[in-house]
Amino acid sequence: MRIVLFGTGNLATRLGIALNTTDAEIVQVFGRTEANTAQLADILNCPYTISLEEINLDADIYILAITDDSIAEVVSKLLIQDQLVVHTAGSVSMNVLSPSVKNQGVFYPLQTLSKNKEVNFKTIPICIEANNTASLEKLDALASSLSDQVIRVDSAQRKRLHLAAVFVCNFVNHFYSIGEKLLNEQQLDFDLLKPLILETANKAMLFSPPDIQTGPAIRGSKTIMDLHFKMLEGHPEWQKLYKMVSNDIVVNRNPSTNHSGI
Amino acid sequence: MRIVLFGTGNLATRLGIALNTTDAEIVQVFGRTEANTAQLADILNCPYTISLEEINLDADIYILAITDDSIAEVVSKLLIQDQLVVHTAGSVSMNVLSPSVKNQGVFYPLQTLSKNKEVNFKTIPICIEANNTASLEKLDALASSLSDQVIRVDSAQRKRLHLAAVFVCNFVNHFYSIGEKLLNEQQLDFDLLKPLILETANKAMLFSPPDIQTGPAIRGSKTIMDLHFKMLEGHPEWQKLYKMVSNDIVVNRNPSTNHSGI
Repeated sequence: MRIVLFGTGNLATRLGIALNTTDAEIVQVFGRTEANTAQLADILNCPYTISLEEINLDADIYILAITDDSIAEVVSKLLIQDQLVVHTAGSVSMNVLSPSVKNQGVFYPLQTLSKNKEVNFKTIPICIEANNTASLEKLDALASSLSDQVIRVDSAQRKRLHLAAVFVCNFVNHFYSIGEKLLNEQQLDFDLLKPLILETANKAMLFSPPDIQTGPAIRGSKTIMDLHFKMLEGHPEWQKLYKMVSNDIVVNRNPSTNHSGI
Repeated sequence: MRIVLFGTGNLATRLGIALNTTDAEIVQVFGRTEANTAQLADILNCPYTISLEEINLDADIYILAITDDSIAEVVSKLLIQDQLVVHTAGSVSMNVLSPSVKNQGVFYPLQTLSKNKEVNFKTIPICIEANNTASLEKLDALASSLSDQVIRVDSAQRKRLHLAAVFVCNFVNHFYSIGEKLLNEQQLDFDLLKPLILETANKAMLFSPPDIQTGPAIRGSKTIMDLHFKMLEGHPEWQKLYKMVSNDIVVNRNPSTNHSGI
């Protein structure tokens, strides 16, 4: 399978590296800036262009790993006829590719990716969607060459997955940031929280999260919550967050579970 | 070292099991209810009592792994003279043990513990504090027999660690719960989020969290954030959380970092 890869960010980089381990061939990389595009092309050992007019028209799949807002614009400038064009965005409908593209699809890896962090694509759920069976099968073959977990979802389901991912990844990481800052303010090392962060994630692999909720909120320890609220006096936004999340933990309490621990 | 262990909850259970792998000897377990106490004594293969008047007075260390609010009351009823009494609470000052106890301390494992989840104590940071050098050394010896990470902190530092732990563990787990519910509402399997949850935690082992923040908020994708807000219409509390955490991500943005991904 011959592929043109659009984008030079985290996803384009990680996806390109993963594709290079399969039978697929990246025949071209497209990016906006010379420096970034040349750099990725060098990593992937393939040709590149920064001009949409020079896109290789002789590929099987065109993968748009670009920012959500630029998908429609880039697609409108492509001269693709019958080949498959897919975007990789969690919360953008497939029909953003219409009417320019006949065979359209979505290829959405449900994972947080960074240029400078290796990742095992085999374990990443890849959500695929296409507007006809032949395209879906083509996408399925490509996705299955990368991952053991390929799932077919429609745009509504994909948006729901992305919304959930914002909570369990982006928002979770922000709470890691808050934890780090709270410790650094007192010259305590963030490393001290790392076993706790890992164990919390590992427990979610084995149990339904509401069943293993621990902490002052679920225990109803008003004394501790009041103390923590007071300790956050220098951070009014975190005070509001503390109160709001604690309340939400109580509201969503599973009454049949014994909650204690941290 | 001869130990009396107070409590029958998650911490008492996990700590007791860990202590049984060391040279320390648990000479008695105390609990409020016959059933729970007998059960833990059975697991730990040691005697038990449910009467404070029957506490074995011939131990070296008395470990109170009981609810925060009951520490002062239990201590006031103990007839301990020179032995070491410690509590295990993150946000309770050591001096809650005064004036009843001469040799006092705190033994706080910074980890989320559950009765039904095995845990490797060797990797758990154990925070210790005592009101004199001899007691601190005794506690250090005990903690070091359990863990490779023993740190001496005062009550203020310990409370700060606990506060940070609430964010990176309790609140994070609640966001896992929200993710699970958002998926279940659409008949999507929580398993789909698990690789993402693990990778997010693993990245925090390697990078400072603000440097790897990804998502619509840090990218300033207003279109996506508006869409997600609308999708949360059935959950007004989660709408408020979504807005508040997203704003906080932007406010705490690290301007030197490239943010993309999920």
